[in-house]
Amino acid sequence: MEKTLALCCELISRQSITPDDAGCQALIAERLSAIGFECQAMPFAEVDNLWAERGDSGPILVFAGHTDVVPTGPLTQWQTPPFEPTLRDGVLYGRGAADMKGSLAAMIIACEEFVAEHPDHKGRIGFLITSDEEGPAVNGTVKVMEALAQQGKSIDWCLIGEPSSTAQLGDVVKNGRRGSLGAKLTIKGVQGHIAYPHLADNPIHRALPALQALTDEVWDRGNESFPPTTMQISNINAGTGATNVIPGELHLLFNFRFSTEVSDADLRGRTQAILDAHDLDYELEWNLSGQAFLTPSGELVDAAVDSIRAVAGIDTELSTAGGTSDGRFIAPTGAQVLELGPINASIHQLNENVLAADLPRLAAMYKGILLRLLCD
Amino acid sequence: MEKTLALCCELISRQSITPDDAGCQALIAERLSAIGFECQAMPFAEVDNLWAERGDSGPILVFAGHTDVVPTGPLTQWQTPPFEPTLRDGVLYGRGAADMKGSLAAMIIACEEFVAEHPDHKGRIGFLITSDEEGPAVNGTVKVMEALAQQGKSIDWCLIGEPSSTAQLGDVVKNGRRGSLGAKLTIKGVQGHIAYPHLADNPIHRALPALQALTDEVWDRGNESFPPTTMQISNINAGTGATNVIPGELHLLFNFRFSTEVSDADLRGRTQAILDAHDLDYELEWNLSGQAFLTPSGELVDAAVDSIRAVAGIDTELSTAGGTSDGRFIAPTGAQVLELGPINASIHQLNENVLAADLPRLAAMYKGILLRLLCD
Repeated sequence: MEKTLALCCELISRQSITPDDAGCQALIAERLSAIGFECQAMPFAEVDNLWAERGDSGPILVFAGHTDVVPTGPLTQWQTPPFEPTLRDGVLYGRGAADMKGSLAAMIIACEEFVAEHPDHKGRIGFLITSDEEGPAVNGTVKVMEALAQQGKSIDWCLIGEPSSTAQLGDVVKNGRRGSLGAKLTIKGVQGHIAYPHLADNPIHRALPALQALTDEVWDRGNESFPPTTMQISNINAGTGATNVIPGELHLLFNFRFSTEVSDADLRGRTQAILDAHDLDYELEWNLSGQAFLTPSGELVDAAVDSIRAVAGIDTELSTAGGTSDGRFIAPTGAQVLELGPINASIHQLNENVLAADLPRLAAMYKGILLRLLCD
Repeated sequence: MEKTLALCCELISRQSITPDDAGCQALIAERLSAIGFECQAMPFAEVDNLWAERGDSGPILVFAGHTDVVPTGPLTQWQTPPFEPTLRDGVLYGRGAADMKGSLAAMIIACEEFVAEHPDHKGRIGFLITSDEEGPAVNGTVKVMEALAQQGKSIDWCLIGEPSSTAQLGDVVKNGRRGSLGAKLTIKGVQGHIAYPHLADNPIHRALPALQALTDEVWDRGNESFPPTTMQISNINAGTGATNVIPGELHLLFNFRFSTEVSDADLRGRTQAILDAHDLDYELEWNLSGQAFLTPSGELVDAAVDSIRAVAGIDTELSTAGGTSDGRFIAPTGAQVLELGPINASIHQLNENVLAADLPRLAAMYKGILLRLLCD
């Protein structure tokens, strides 16, 4: 069996549902130690994290990723058991095959080959692996970044193995992500009987013009790298079910996915200004999931674009679409951050899979980036 | 003990929580039979109803009311047990004292005195008593009206004992009620991930302009007898609690309290026109609780105004404010309908009560109406 595929199978067979690492990081540390990495376990609460580093000085290229996988869903709907990696017609099936044990295997194989050929490479290579990317993401990458800061370490280039590809391997890389800002809004009125609306103050009616203004607002027009910022109300609730009672409060949840054209502070301020302009008695709680970040150009993007073209013969597309990733915790330190991984069509689904042939090709792309950044 | 007060106490001591009549109607029938009424039990399902009639021909004045009472609420918060009628400082306490066993007692005493003085009165006197006015109101007055229609009977004047007074006995009578029309609205969108709003169709966002138009609409301007029609949204719900999902449907309940200036058909049609103008995919279910009705003037109103002035020395106010009553089932047949009863400040509350002195005065008012309508 091809060695990237074999390593991926070894990882899939470990049932590492968030936050359980199930021995994946020990396997990774064993492989990396064998080629000169210094490995440091960084557990926080129930989450296992691994920091590994090779080389003494100079700029560092960090491979970042996670060993945890999302739950399987109904086992009966898997064609083969999710933690028994199965090769069928050139496709490898198993939970985590695409997100992201295939990438982890490709990173390790890339490093093994690169170090064998260039034992005295320039700079440093790092690995930042967590077992809590699919979960609360509280004791994972964010805590490792804090620990590295305390050790005086910073990251120059970070290559994340998230499955970025859409139709074929390497067609898309993520060079940034939108920010995500959540809000919990309570609009207060005065409860009363529906036959006496003049004695009540209906918070639903009172809220409508403000909600219309919030949904009409053009928060920005996006830019070359980002689509315009969006605001969506996900939840709205008022009333007890009784048909004759005007409710006392209206509750809403809404969320911004925002570009680098606005800051979360801008969005908070403008939201509050709109609410204030509508004479509302309200409470507003904010939850910043992640700032927007962008790696517009530079050595890492150039190396990835070149390497993908060399391996796959295609011009990759730089994209910032989609949800959040752990890149939100790494980019704010000033690192260049890029996400490159397999086709994401089956992630988080039943019968998750990856094309077997894509795994050594992904390893080759990673190796090409190492070559371009850490060799003269 | 004064006889109206004594009869009221007898009724209160019967624990007739909806739909249980608890023997109240048997007591009423016994008293009415003794003065020449023909009594007819009209039970429907679990609801007891009583129809009583005195006289052979001519116009009929019907006393209408209910023996059922609302639940007590926490017994420990009553100063005296709710079904032990208690006189304290001139006030009679007990569940149903004001709504509406005081009125029932006053109706019976009024008839006893009237019949003793005018055994050969003109026309007819009727009683329409149900034990389901406070509940679903399905097997009560509405069914009795259907049965009377089958018997070829119609009602000329209907005096309902609902507690209409506010500051002093007789200061307000209800000569109509607003209609009540409920709606259940579902607005459909397309569910999706909040990071990809272009792939979804947020029903909350889509609904806002239509909801604004519905709440902005001037449905009518009311008239001399009715305040303007109101529309209130009582419930609004969308979302599963998840912060990252655009919901697929928005659910609303709203209610019209409407004057005689619009019909329920007008309201339905105009609501649908507004929704249709906003390009929505929606489902709408209507529930008509009652048509608006009004007894603007005539013999019954005149008799009541005169009688109240004679007993209490005040000019009563004609009002259509407040919720619904069983008048909604009687007025559509063409009857003149008027509601006159005690002060309503304590109804449906803990320590419900009525001024003891008001009970014989209410009987005198009812008797005065009998005199004015059924004697030359």
